[in-house]
Amino acid sequence: METKYNFVKNKIKSQILQGFIQPHQKVGSETELMKEYEVSRHTVRKAIDELVNDGWIYKKQGAGTFCADRSALKSGTAGQQTKNIAVITTYFSDYIFPSIIRGIEGYLSKNGYQVTLFSTNNNIEQERRCLEAVLQQGFDGLIVEPTKSALPNPNINYYLNLERTGIPYVMINAYYEELEPTHLIMNDVEGGRIQTRHVLDLGHQYVLGFFKNDDIQGTKRMKGFIKAHRESGIPLSPKNIITYTTETKETVPVEELRQHLTNTSELPTAIVCYNDQLALMLLDVIRDMKLSVPEDISVVGYDDSFLSVASEVKLTTVKHPKEEMGKEAGRRIYNFIEQKLAPSRHFEMTPVVYEPKIIIRNSTQGLGVKEIN
Amino acid sequence: METKYNFVKNKIKSQILQGFIQPHQKVGSETELMKEYEVSRHTVRKAIDELVNDGWIYKKQGAGTFCADRSALKSGTAGQQTKNIAVITTYFSDYIFPSIIRGIEGYLSKNGYQVTLFSTNNNIEQERRCLEAVLQQGFDGLIVEPTKSALPNPNINYYLNLERTGIPYVMINAYYEELEPTHLIMNDVEGGRIQTRHVLDLGHQYVLGFFKNDDIQGTKRMKGFIKAHRESGIPLSPKNIITYTTETKETVPVEELRQHLTNTSELPTAIVCYNDQLALMLLDVIRDMKLSVPEDISVVGYDDSFLSVASEVKLTTVKHPKEEMGKEAGRRIYNFIEQKLAPSRHFEMTPVVYEPKIIIRNSTQGLGVKEIN
Repeated sequence: METKYNFVKNKIKSQILQGFIQPHQKVGSETELMKEYEVSRHTVRKAIDELVNDGWIYKKQGAGTFCADRSALKSGTAGQQTKNIAVITTYFSDYIFPSIIRGIEGYLSKNGYQVTLFSTNNNIEQERRCLEAVLQQGFDGLIVEPTKSALPNPNINYYLNLERTGIPYVMINAYYEELEPTHLIMNDVEGGRIQTRHVLDLGHQYVLGFFKNDDIQGTKRMKGFIKAHRESGIPLSPKNIITYTTETKETVPVEELRQHLTNTSELPTAIVCYNDQLALMLLDVIRDMKLSVPEDISVVGYDDSFLSVASEVKLTTVKHPKEEMGKEAGRRIYNFIEQKLAPSRHFEMTPVVYEPKIIIRNSTQGLGVKEIN
Repeated sequence: METKYNFVKNKIKSQILQGFIQPHQKVGSETELMKEYEVSRHTVRKAIDELVNDGWIYKKQGAGTFCADRSALKSGTAGQQTKNIAVITTYFSDYIFPSIIRGIEGYLSKNGYQVTLFSTNNNIEQERRCLEAVLQQGFDGLIVEPTKSALPNPNINYYLNLERTGIPYVMINAYYEELEPTHLIMNDVEGGRIQTRHVLDLGHQYVLGFFKNDDIQGTKRMKGFIKAHRESGIPLSPKNIITYTTETKETVPVEELRQHLTNTSELPTAIVCYNDQLALMLLDVIRDMKLSVPEDISVVGYDDSFLSVASEVKLTTVKHPKEEMGKEAGRRIYNFIEQKLAPSRHFEMTPVVYEPKIIIRNSTQGLGVKEIN
């Protein structure tokens, strides 16, 4: 169990890292802290002493305890940089993340910077811990993929404090709208549109779309899905859109597809997927139901990941810039640091928006086309 | 308690209203429905019989039960319209909603249409019930203010089904991005920016911003708040942004302001509010703490509602088009109906974006200015 004084210590540290207590601002008196955290004077003293020792706060004779200026500490040694960049992604060991990270690392290591990786598992609480670590460890910059980007972000304080502390950051794949950060993203509306147009143009009319809606990419691809139906004049039945979240991604899509495929009256003939990972999961469901891709059902993925060619069926998918995006993110953060631009200037940089391209493989075919054996 | 057959009946109705069962599509067999809802054959039969009686479904000898085409029913009588428009707002009895509704009603009644009002209390479940009512009662069109517009919307099915059924809709104040509906909104980023610039230009440096972040207007005004700080080169301390939701609006802002005002080291000198309603609530807190507006603290509201001049202190605020927006929404929905445009064409209409203007009254003043008695 966490000791009481450690609890108080971490609470105060978190207040400092969120910028709620600014450098040289007074930290509450012993009595105030005792009241706030409902602990003894002894506990407060022990927490304060350790925070002083660790350089988080300092004491001024007769005046009280104050928040230390850690940014001065960091760049204090003649403006020396740590040459260390933090990268926070939602996941890092699988899917397209290794490619993105390879792009970032390749560029930065060539330019004398080291990269440290953090992952949030698309969990807000873990993102908070990552941001605390980044703020504590004095990185020169941060490349970050937002966590649950379609929902209001409770960690916005940390980003504002990065800005205040003079640590530049660049967002990839998505961005928190209210912060207007420099960002590198795909045109996901267009991506969803061309995925869908591809199968509609092949004559499919009953097309299911599966979209993850706690990340903004999913919402945008879904917008493209709706747009494509309108353009083609093909009525879109509301039941054809299936949304899921990080927490339900293993269950909802599989169950919903199974249900659509057991419907006796009419079967969907094409499926548009949020990404290749999902497409592969749904391929298993289709196989299970003794149906074939693309003969019975066409499947479109997204991201052109290694998974798109890993299965027997090679996926028609949408190209994601991956390594190129990583490299460009590295180049941007490098420039911010080297040019010593005022942080407020970073927010005026033109974003990079990658236009999607469809890659046609053998998971899709025209409606009614049957292979002749 | 709801009877079992009523439960089944409502479930099937809801499936039809969401567009999960389309006109002339087969409704599950008795055995399937028994299994799905875990009820007896007797219960299923009773539910089916009533649905047939009410015109929701029809039976075809030997083939089963099918979903009726209610849109045909509606416009069946020689394309006759009901001359009835539904209006769904988050609230209607208070604040700026009466003015908006007056604008809508004024325009539509002059043109021979009747208006029916629904309110969601910014609750998703209530929005669902409103949309079900609108779909059931055969309105010619809908003007809707989205509920919890900053969060992914689980009722998107109903909107897609409105589109499919040929009932046009127009969104006001905010809109669900993925639907790309015709919409009439304020430029809320700019609104938040000019609210904040006003007090920063008056010399205030420690400015608190209170924003409701389950509606997109709040997120956008907050973006304007951050933007204004960056433009003015005034460092923004993360603790100066306070966010709250529909559920916490009565508690969080009041508590947070109280805490900021009991801080011994430094007091905020200005407050930027999400709307006039909140501003008035915070005026009470300030009075309670024996502080004066604008002598000790400047306060900026938003919306230029009747509340802005209701208190002793007349609020500096941002003009909301209210009645004008309502009138224009009425005009748009009227045109959609009269011109009999294909629903897909509605989504190509240019949105109306109202530019905000600040109205300066006596709740704000320059920092350090004291009245001479």
